[in-house]
Amino acid sequence: METNAFGVTSQIYSPTIGNPLDPEEFKRQGYMMIDFLADYYRNVANYPVLSQVEPNYLRKALPQSAPFDPESIEAILQDVQQHIIPGITHWLSPNYFAYFPSSASTAGILGEMLSTGLGVNGFNWLSSPAITELESIVMDWLGQELKLPGTFLFSGNGGGVVLNTTCEAILCTLVAARDKVLSQVGNDNITKLVVYASDQTHCALKKAAQIAGIHPKNIHAIKTNKSTSFALSPESLFSTILVDVENGLIPCFLCATVGTTATTAIDPIGPLCNVAKKFGIWVHVDAAYAGSACICPEFRNSIDGIEEVDSFSFNAHKWFFTNLLCCCLWVKNPNDLTKSLSTNASYLRNKVSDSKQAIDYKDWQITLSKKFNALKLWMVLRSYGIGNLRNFLRNHVKMAKTFEEFVKMDRRFEIFVPRTFSTVCFRLTPSAIAKLEHYANTTKAHQNGKLASEDFVNQVNYKLLDLINGSGKVYMTHTVVAGAFVLRCAIGGTLTEEKHVNMMWETVQEKVDSILGKPKIALY
Amino acid sequence: METNAFGVTSQIYSPTIGNPLDPEEFKRQGYMMIDFLADYYRNVANYPVLSQVEPNYLRKALPQSAPFDPESIEAILQDVQQHIIPGITHWLSPNYFAYFPSSASTAGILGEMLSTGLGVNGFNWLSSPAITELESIVMDWLGQELKLPGTFLFSGNGGGVVLNTTCEAILCTLVAARDKVLSQVGNDNITKLVVYASDQTHCALKKAAQIAGIHPKNIHAIKTNKSTSFALSPESLFSTILVDVENGLIPCFLCATVGTTATTAIDPIGPLCNVAKKFGIWVHVDAAYAGSACICPEFRNSIDGIEEVDSFSFNAHKWFFTNLLCCCLWVKNPNDLTKSLSTNASYLRNKVSDSKQAIDYKDWQITLSKKFNALKLWMVLRSYGIGNLRNFLRNHVKMAKTFEEFVKMDRRFEIFVPRTFSTVCFRLTPSAIAKLEHYANTTKAHQNGKLASEDFVNQVNYKLLDLINGSGKVYMTHTVVAGAFVLRCAIGGTLTEEKHVNMMWETVQEKVDSILGKPKIALY
Repeated sequence: METNAFGVTSQIYSPTIGNPLDPEEFKRQGYMMIDFLADYYRNVANYPVLSQVEPNYLRKALPQSAPFDPESIEAILQDVQQHIIPGITHWLSPNYFAYFPSSASTAGILGEMLSTGLGVNGFNWLSSPAITELESIVMDWLGQELKLPGTFLFSGNGGGVVLNTTCEAILCTLVAARDKVLSQVGNDNITKLVVYASDQTHCALKKAAQIAGIHPKNIHAIKTNKSTSFALSPESLFSTILVDVENGLIPCFLCATVGTTATTAIDPIGPLCNVAKKFGIWVHVDAAYAGSACICPEFRNSIDGIEEVDSFSFNAHKWFFTNLLCCCLWVKNPNDLTKSLSTNASYLRNKVSDSKQAIDYKDWQITLSKKFNALKLWMVLRSYGIGNLRNFLRNHVKMAKTFEEFVKMDRRFEIFVPRTFSTVCFRLTPSAIAKLEHYANTTKAHQNGKLASEDFVNQVNYKLLDLINGSGKVYMTHTVVAGAFVLRCAIGGTLTEEKHVNMMWETVQEKVDSILGKPKIALY
Repeated sequence: METNAFGVTSQIYSPTIGNPLDPEEFKRQGYMMIDFLADYYRNVANYPVLSQVEPNYLRKALPQSAPFDPESIEAILQDVQQHIIPGITHWLSPNYFAYFPSSASTAGILGEMLSTGLGVNGFNWLSSPAITELESIVMDWLGQELKLPGTFLFSGNGGGVVLNTTCEAILCTLVAARDKVLSQVGNDNITKLVVYASDQTHCALKKAAQIAGIHPKNIHAIKTNKSTSFALSPESLFSTILVDVENGLIPCFLCATVGTTATTAIDPIGPLCNVAKKFGIWVHVDAAYAGSACICPEFRNSIDGIEEVDSFSFNAHKWFFTNLLCCCLWVKNPNDLTKSLSTNASYLRNKVSDSKQAIDYKDWQITLSKKFNALKLWMVLRSYGIGNLRNFLRNHVKMAKTFEEFVKMDRRFEIFVPRTFSTVCFRLTPSAIAKLEHYANTTKAHQNGKLASEDFVNQVNYKLLDLINGSGKVYMTHTVVAGAFVLRCAIGGTLTEEKHVNMMWETVQEKVDSILGKPKIALY
């Protein structure tokens, strides 16, 4: 017996608590959780997609401290339904079109369950050989399907690793690139190293550079523009590097992107490598979102030139039905990674590692511990097969085309940059907004003939997005490119079907009508 | 229809493949996975604990490439049983005493299932408010139970975050410490920054320092010795720092450990802080393994002095029934973290973030994406309650005491360093091994009276461990401290009961007997 802070006496071993891994109780509770999730998938389309809660809503609802006595799974699941579900934004809703998808599948979930349930840790081969072996096999499988050059596969002395996120992939490769240069020029020159990217590159690059100790002044984001659909220009890269070299700086790392976050722009890998190789720069390709599409022959040209790069990554948790978190990274020369990321503690040494017969993945990643992440990738590949996976992706692209056609047919809108994959960037045009006399007169919008000022256009598009998301029926996000506020509609949710896209378009139109008034045939 | 590389024509939408998140199919397969895992827990004690496979065993068993056509869950689970289970080292076996435990529980597994099943991403508050809110609440709950000073809780303007591993906790805090110093001395001085730890500190510190761009010469591991049970001496720290300062270096970061990996040594936090504070050094406390024990009043003194440190972390996935991966980090001044780890991409901006009303955890961690990790911690705390959790830990400590007594009663063995928590470090004594005439004569072992040479003692202890682990009945690991090869027995598996500890001791004795011969009463 023990007395808690409130003077209440509790039994220490409550009779209802057996071993926390008792198989019968695990099974009883496990079925309940499966039922809970199956119900969630049945109902997810009915929830407001974007959570409507206010900051601190949950602190007001939950107790101030952890319970001393055990509580039942029934009570916990009731709280999940009552307090947690209203506070989540439903990434798996078929009406979710925000950011990029975080695609889920039964196979992905089961793979994660198995990984969690087995509870094994794969920091080196010996700590659980199947983790390392399956990961290396599945990374070769996937590399083959993406038609990566043989030099990125283990059979070609390259290899792949499953990390959590692109941030980690960029950090690991940047550190490898940094140390490779420093081994030639000396550690004291770390302050001179320069990292290159476009102004469209994901902020993961900036974060990785900050973490890796790159001088903040030496993170060079090269400007892109609309005329080239926001792709990084090799000429701009070249001239930027030349200036840096003249200034005594040392070019180190380029992060090129295939499918940028803002507009899914594609940096031209081959031509960029031609420039980078002149200066011995490590080239990493971040294809976080679009990489998976390369299993379809018709999209494979997005990564043309990949044989010249040093490393390549994509997120299977984005658009490949493999639940959060799962980032696949391949490198041409694993030694560069392991030189930077190895440590050699005596308590981790063993015969197999010492004999160099096996991979020790701890030396390929930021963390020592490693879950059995390959299971979910393996289960996704096997449960659906490459044929179905291609067609799932194609179906998303087809829906995006449909949506793009809707937008094109409505002259109030413009497609802001050409669509390549399953993400559509669009906005109300300046000319449509110029007709908004009421708004124009009550704000300081500049009306230049038939065009509203860019500021005003941005405000109206912002308002439109706010109304769309406020409806709870759908959720999309925005980006700001070339000074323009643009709506992004990313299609790729596992549950999304054509009817959801149609409904989404209806919602957009309804909200546009509420801002601009119903379109008059004569005007458009 | 599509034709694959082998000329086989397949139906693209196989009639058996519906939507990959179809609730009925999810439920059917989900139950199967629960059954599979329940069976695993029933049988796990019977598997050889340490996997007996050879490198590349799995590549020989699996196909060369991913399947084009879908395969059934039944076929996949059969392969898991046949090919994966023999290749894992059974971390959840009751006979697993290696490294530190990776403790699992039904509540932890269900929490991870829920997180995976909901598929939500919590990089900022808005992306799924409940993720951020529950994490901040649970971190305050846990902080209270550990009796952390109020300054580490959100209510005291500090706060906690759930990361994956200690490597990340150290990297995040080291980067914050580095940038805090650099903001005073200028980025060009990064090569002068020094990081301190003891020679017993986990290799995560070295790795984090390598990643953060600390000059390799400036990672100063201070020697410890057996007389102080391998704890870091404040005097040694002081004298090391003095020399560095005289040499123009800049002290930056100290990683103190509560419960070192090798021997569970406890660095004296208070006295170390007294030294560190003189030089403005950031002090992080890594209590990866032992931190959880501090929920028991009788162990709380291990972190005495914690109010002086800047950050504190422990792994709930080690000895707190919360499945891999789950590292809890608290900081006194979150601004230091977010200054170093923030990036401000336009596509992530939103009203709530801009208003600073809520936490954006992306600025507290290496990665942008964030799973709903707090769910499993919340479910563990609620399902078992603090009362039971304390007693689960106490029961492990009690079993470790029992084992320690066994060892002490057998005069062939010595406890190498005093036990504090649930890990016992022991070895065959030099005097016991000196009696091994046969070995002594056939090797070059130096026999000094009744003592075997240290090399020979190490060899025999190595042999003993090899025999123990080769039996498949139990698995423990080793460490090398002060030149001695020492066996480590870490008790903390969820399924481990007294009978398993007894069986483990029987196995140890059986293998010792096979090396030294049956003990003769007269000799011992």
